[in-house]
Amino acid sequence: MSEFSLINKYFKNATARHNSTIIGIGDDGAVSRLSPKHELVSCTDMLIAGRHFPQHTPAYAIGYKSVAVNLSDLASMGAMPFAILLAIGLPKHLANDAFLGELTQGISDICTQFKTQLIGGDTTQTDSLTLCITALGSVPCNMAIKRDGAKVGDLICVSGEIGSASLALTQILSTDNSLNNAPPTNTHLDNTLSHLDSTLYHALVLPSPQVALGQKLIGVANSMIDVSDGLGQDLGHILTQSGVGARLFLEKIPTNAHLKKLPTHQQWQHIINGGDDYQLCFTLPSDKFCAFNDANPNSIFVIGEIIDGAGVELYHHNQKIQLPIKGWQHF
Amino acid sequence: MSEFSLINKYFKNATARHNSTIIGIGDDGAVSRLSPKHELVSCTDMLIAGRHFPQHTPAYAIGYKSVAVNLSDLASMGAMPFAILLAIGLPKHLANDAFLGELTQGISDICTQFKTQLIGGDTTQTDSLTLCITALGSVPCNMAIKRDGAKVGDLICVSGEIGSASLALTQILSTDNSLNNAPPTNTHLDNTLSHLDSTLYHALVLPSPQVALGQKLIGVANSMIDVSDGLGQDLGHILTQSGVGARLFLEKIPTNAHLKKLPTHQQWQHIINGGDDYQLCFTLPSDKFCAFNDANPNSIFVIGEIIDGAGVELYHHNQKIQLPIKGWQHF
Repeated sequence: MSEFSLINKYFKNATARHNSTIIGIGDDGAVSRLSPKHELVSCTDMLIAGRHFPQHTPAYAIGYKSVAVNLSDLASMGAMPFAILLAIGLPKHLANDAFLGELTQGISDICTQFKTQLIGGDTTQTDSLTLCITALGSVPCNMAIKRDGAKVGDLICVSGEIGSASLALTQILSTDNSLNNAPPTNTHLDNTLSHLDSTLYHALVLPSPQVALGQKLIGVANSMIDVSDGLGQDLGHILTQSGVGARLFLEKIPTNAHLKKLPTHQQWQHIINGGDDYQLCFTLPSDKFCAFNDANPNSIFVIGEIIDGAGVELYHHNQKIQLPIKGWQHF
Repeated sequence: MSEFSLINKYFKNATARHNSTIIGIGDDGAVSRLSPKHELVSCTDMLIAGRHFPQHTPAYAIGYKSVAVNLSDLASMGAMPFAILLAIGLPKHLANDAFLGELTQGISDICTQFKTQLIGGDTTQTDSLTLCITALGSVPCNMAIKRDGAKVGDLICVSGEIGSASLALTQILSTDNSLNNAPPTNTHLDNTLSHLDSTLYHALVLPSPQVALGQKLIGVANSMIDVSDGLGQDLGHILTQSGVGARLFLEKIPTNAHLKKLPTHQQWQHIINGGDDYQLCFTLPSDKFCAFNDANPNSIFVIGEIIDGAGVELYHHNQKIQLPIKGWQHF
């Protein structure tokens, strides 16, 4: 299959046209038009089979999640996505209808859900499946929500359950030990996944980027990040860049019912150091909380407060807890 | 080395600030402001060690060329670059000062040359060095130069020598047979490269994207592409998308003096099927040629004309030449 027949067959019409698109797939570059009152927000993420998702993850989920993690980055700036670019490194044995059909269906579904168009990309041959997605969004001028704006007295909130993806991954790894070896081969993750509880399955393989909430928090949140490397580490970026500290109340962090069954120290490991949550973590002035919470019931959860100082203090029912904050190590 | 120390040390200040940048490296997404009279042009390319550049290519050249090929895509739309995003998959043995220092110097130098800022990216660990660069540029509204605008009677032009990079690669491969095996290992390409003629060396490892020329051709060229996969194949995209044919005059195509020493059929293979040139190939109405050529002496070269029909006809001093057009196969 040539690059061009592959692009035409699977990618050219994978998504609906977005009204910002002037030129989509099929030229040297894509052309998009932004509203003059908006700024461009861009981010990129590279995902490798066997590292960012276990080998044999269903192709649909690989496509879906690769886009989701990028839209989550846009969400955490308060941006509205309009387009993605997809560079794909494909091993020869995956250049077939079964794999590519499912992969593009996953990409197509999440793009449709978030009104985002696949406008360009690149395909090449690799040993390991490699997806590099660039997401493009827009934000009203001067309104992007940064990491460095947290203020002492801010409430710290998250947008949903933390630790679920980490628990799901642990359950998969304990079911199928071959996944512990990198790179895992000859496993049957699709079967393993089907035995997971469906809320955990979704948290791990079909995470839902908080795109609408991110935009609603413009003018409300002082700082924001998405939780990808672990709540402790990601909140740590807000603290470092804002020059403040934080107090977290572990019992207030929303978690999955399956996680609540574990011993508390195991729960906290998943919550603080797990990662892959793709929930938003943000801070807002306490006097803005009630109005926002009333207008958006059950969508934000207070888990702590910003304090003078540096680093994260953990509490559980007023007892100070010692737990080293590690999070995902990229190297 | 953590991802964060790596980003801070090598990438955060690798390039000068561009006045379009509102938020650069260090948040979930970068924020850029475009002029309201411009549209956004975006493109992405994934480059893999051992496939897009021979193993042991100097790190400086890898960095430089990875950006160059993307800026060349922007150039071929008539766009002015303002930013790049870099996703890098790094094998553990290359996560050191010697490699990363050189790599970022190459990226920094070409970004400085073309007034482009590195505004974001991603780092991860891989088995093979993998660079995925997304380039962002701007073009005046409705003025992007597409592939589908060629008209019967247009002159076909290129911006410089064709076939040089292909010749250079052939010379390297013939010097060092171990490079013929994919993936090549334990070679000494840096030594091999130093024995190449300097014009050939530059064509292969430090190609110069035709950014200024691309912008000058706005309102002049009817269609444009950059030559990356081979002149025959790339011109073929213009022809297919425009619904026209072409007649090329092989003796008019500018080539390196070293290429001219080869038997003609070998010359033509490098010229038509070689690729990696990163020159612009474009068509323009014949009545616009003289004024443009006078204003920009020695920067564009007529190599043929657009005709009714389909496909490329090759001529050498009025004799029709049969040469299968293949170009670079991505799979």
